[in-house]
Amino acid sequence: MTVDLNCDMGESYGRWALGDDAAVLPHISSANIACGGHAGDAVVMRRTLKLAQQHGVACGAHPGFVDLASFGRREIPISASEAADLVLLQIGALGAIAKSERISLAHVKAHGALYNMAARDAALGEAIAHAVAAYDRSLIFFGLAGSSMLEAGRRAGLSVASEGFADRSYEPDGSLTPRSVAGSVIHDLDAVVARACRMARESRVTARNGSEITLKVDTICVHGDTPGAAGLARALREGLQRAGIEVRPVQP
Amino acid sequence: MTVDLNCDMGESYGRWALGDDAAVLPHISSANIACGGHAGDAVVMRRTLKLAQQHGVACGAHPGFVDLASFGRREIPISASEAADLVLLQIGALGAIAKSERISLAHVKAHGALYNMAARDAALGEAIAHAVAAYDRSLIFFGLAGSSMLEAGRRAGLSVASEGFADRSYEPDGSLTPRSVAGSVIHDLDAVVARACRMARESRVTARNGSEITLKVDTICVHGDTPGAAGLARALREGLQRAGIEVRPVQP
Amino acid sequence: MTVDLNCDMGESYGRWALGDDAAVLPHISSANIACGGHAGDAVVMRRTLKLAQQHGVACGAHPGFVDLASFGRREIPISASEAADLVLLQIGALGAIAKSERISLAHVKAHGALYNMAARDAALGEAIAHAVAAYDRSLIFFGLAGSSMLEAGRRAGLSVASEGFADRSYEPDGSLTPRSVAGSVIHDLDAVVARACRMARESRVTARNGSEITLKVDTICVHGDTPGAAGLARALREGLQRAGIEVRPVQP
Amino acid sequence: MTVDLNCDMGESYGRWALGDDAAVLPHISSANIACGGHAGDAVVMRRTLKLAQQHGVACGAHPGFVDLASFGRREIPISASEAADLVLLQIGALGAIAKSERISLAHVKAHGALYNMAARDAALGEAIAHAVAAYDRSLIFFGLAGSSMLEAGRRAGLSVASEGFADRSYEPDGSLTPRSVAGSVIHDLDAVVARACRMARESRVTARNGSEITLKVDTICVHGDTPGAAGLARALREGLQRAGIEVRPVQP
Repeated sequence: MTVDLNCDMGESYGRWALGDDAAVLPHISSANIACGGHAGDAVVMRRTLKLAQQHGVACGAHPGFVDLASFGRREIPISASEAADLVLLQIGALGAIAKSERISLAHVKAHGALYNMAARDAALGEAIAHAVAAYDRSLIFFGLAGSSMLEAGRRAGLSVASEGFADRSYEPDGSLTPRSVAGSVIHDLDAVVARACRMARESRVTARNGSEITLKVDTICVHGDTPGAAGLARALREGLQRAGIEVRPVQP
Repeated sequence: MTVDLNCDMGESYGRWALGDDAAVLPHISSANIACGGHAGDAVVMRRTLKLAQQHGVACGAHPGFVDLASFGRREIPISASEAADLVLLQIGALGAIAKSERISLAHVKAHGALYNMAARDAALGEAIAHAVAAYDRSLIFFGLAGSSMLEAGRRAGLSVASEGFADRSYEPDGSLTPRSVAGSVIHDLDAVVARACRMARESRVTARNGSEITLKVDTICVHGDTPGAAGLARALREGLQRAGIEVRPVQP
Repeated sequence: MTVDLNCDMGESYGRWALGDDAAVLPHISSANIACGGHAGDAVVMRRTLKLAQQHGVACGAHPGFVDLASFGRREIPISASEAADLVLLQIGALGAIAKSERISLAHVKAHGALYNMAARDAALGEAIAHAVAAYDRSLIFFGLAGSSMLEAGRRAGLSVASEGFADRSYEPDGSLTPRSVAGSVIHDLDAVVARACRMARESRVTARNGSEITLKVDTICVHGDTPGAAGLARALREGLQRAGIEVRPVQP
Repeated sequence: MTVDLNCDMGESYGRWALGDDAAVLPHISSANIACGGHAGDAVVMRRTLKLAQQHGVACGAHPGFVDLASFGRREIPISASEAADLVLLQIGALGAIAKSERISLAHVKAHGALYNMAARDAALGEAIAHAVAAYDRSLIFFGLAGSSMLEAGRRAGLSVASEGFADRSYEPDGSLTPRSVAGSVIHDLDAVVARACRMARESRVTARNGSEITLKVDTICVHGDTPGAAGLARALREGLQRAGIEVRPVQP
């Protein structure tokens, strides 16, 4: 039994540092590396790619809106073709830096508002999946568990990874509880670890109203820009391993 | 006997149109396509790539400083590794759009201030050439005729193309007469065509002081953002053909 | 009887020229000058301010989203306080350039998506009006005729100008026919002039379904980035004058 | 006997935090607030202005190159008029936010590469001083002690403040020892405090070669983006007060 632990990385920019990538990397198996849209620059990309590789962590592209001001969190209206272009430009940019270091990208996970919009809007998800496939059909496409993104990825000919959030509350329909709702983020470390184990082993999670829902999960997200990210990543890895679940990158 | 005619293209941005690419393309053999640094966005890149392909014109990347405000014309201090990263990010971005259209990039020509700095500073030229080679060793590297860029390209394992400017005056040492000097730009169409023919056929050009200099030229530049670009391109092609010189892309 | 003719101006950026401000200025009475958000840079601002002043045209600020890529046309989600800050930063920037030329700003008109959102969303309109008043209570606040923007401006203590669009079709409720609807833009010059005259003289316009609606209008917009802008501006001015309506800036 | 302690502030941007302004403010008398060019956004500006005001600290503008990527540290070639415009746009922007909070700006200090270039290039210093004066003649103009900036400020009709760096080594000619030279930054807190006291009281400092130089100093800079900024600020204030030197804003 295996599961992937993924974390957003390389989200510094020039003079501004963010996240403690070096402390998180020993505990995860996939790094989603910012591509210069919402964060990241060439120096940060190169450093993060090399650091991830040294830890045996799979490197992925983490494209988002070209919007440093909001860190890619504003839902900017965008057409399907604009979304595809956004993703192509950013995978291409990170991919070129990776190539110069002889590192291969393994996966793509959209960032922030782009991820959320793609999870809700099938046409966007479709366009992004096709952009990824046009760039490199061997890339694994990460998408929200239960969303149409995964089906879009498969239709584009990609391997997909279904993503769960162990520190987020779920609604009975399988969607994430909006952050505006009290209790949407789970802070108790033991509870988060227990949820991760259930997601990985049983494909189940308890929703906010107490009902049990099915959630097939290939990869579990650790938020890298929160203060305790390294501790959470470590606790998750150790908890999963204790439960007999190996943490390793998603296989195509 | 052959020579390449190249022109900068795809230098519009969003709402702002620049150049008359559609009118120039029938007359040239290589298009240097802006990559979003000094100009160009994904929509413009895609449109320009497709248009060039329709005309049988070779598509190349035209990376420059990330500086829309000056159109890449300010000589921003930059280290060799920053220059390499700049070029990688932009070739990667354009290359990804090209790949999604099943178009292969054929060459790379640096833009504006980056080109001028690389022609003067051997370490920059070297770094850029290595970046290009790291991305794709089959790309042809364009550089100023007589400059160290060409040797840098060869050392990096690339095919190179030596670039001449038929509408620019040269100094006796083979450098371009600075634009600040009167007569640095030659406006007489017949004179420009005659110079192009001599460059292509005899590898010679008359310098500003009347002396004859040797200038081996594989590709001749047409400036695409000047008003009469299409007329100049047409006159050059027709003049070269009349002189028995075939206009076609540089061969690797 | 008087009316103001306003036009967006100074929407070039660096190497990219847009609009024919010098040809439009002789015919209008108010220039809405881009402030660097959706278009415009310091050189363009200064040149446009001076040119407008030379023509005796009132200078106003034309703030929009900080979004060169879409020319301020994407409706980016924004809070009321973000909208206020956006407007403050941009009026402040243009105002400083104006001050260095001893030119006073006379009015503020939001641009593109920001204007449309403020016309629909009372809280945004309110926030923008208060930002303008906080900067300078003597500025005249331009808003869509019939929208809550005008009331917001008055509540903030500002003089307001109600804006009509002579070349746009109206719905029976006084809103503009969306551009996606056929016939939303009126191209017949005589019809546009006739509508402008009726707006100015009778405060009335014929809606798309033939019904007559009341539309009190202080200022009529000429779109400056369309090819025939100068001709339209000239026709409007001449038509209004022939109808005995003086074209002059809105008075506070 | 008095001296001003100034510190760069408000250099966060969006998601990225930098500096510990709240910890530094109790100890300084002048805050140089980033204006959105090299750092800072509207939210950061507003928060920093209010925080400074709450501590009774004078608020100043801290304009720099529009270059988030390098934090305003690259010496981008710039004409005198471009430098003036840069400063006008940024003072205007910060000034508008300040006005909306009924806070008056007290001074202007150029940032990073712009400061260094203005200290070396008299024409740039002149242009910047005139821009400041055109915006508001009551602003105090900060410039490097011993440089032509101060004379430029006076000629433009401004009050000026001569700035010293207590934690930097000086050359015998009164210039700062370049950072590339070993020992250019003084890390010993007691030594820094002692140098500040001598600067303030005796207008003297010991240069790198041991010679004594005269350096009239009105304001001493505390670097805000270094880890120990708050401790350094506190030590300086306490040391100066112990030496009978009152820390308070520069008076016009």
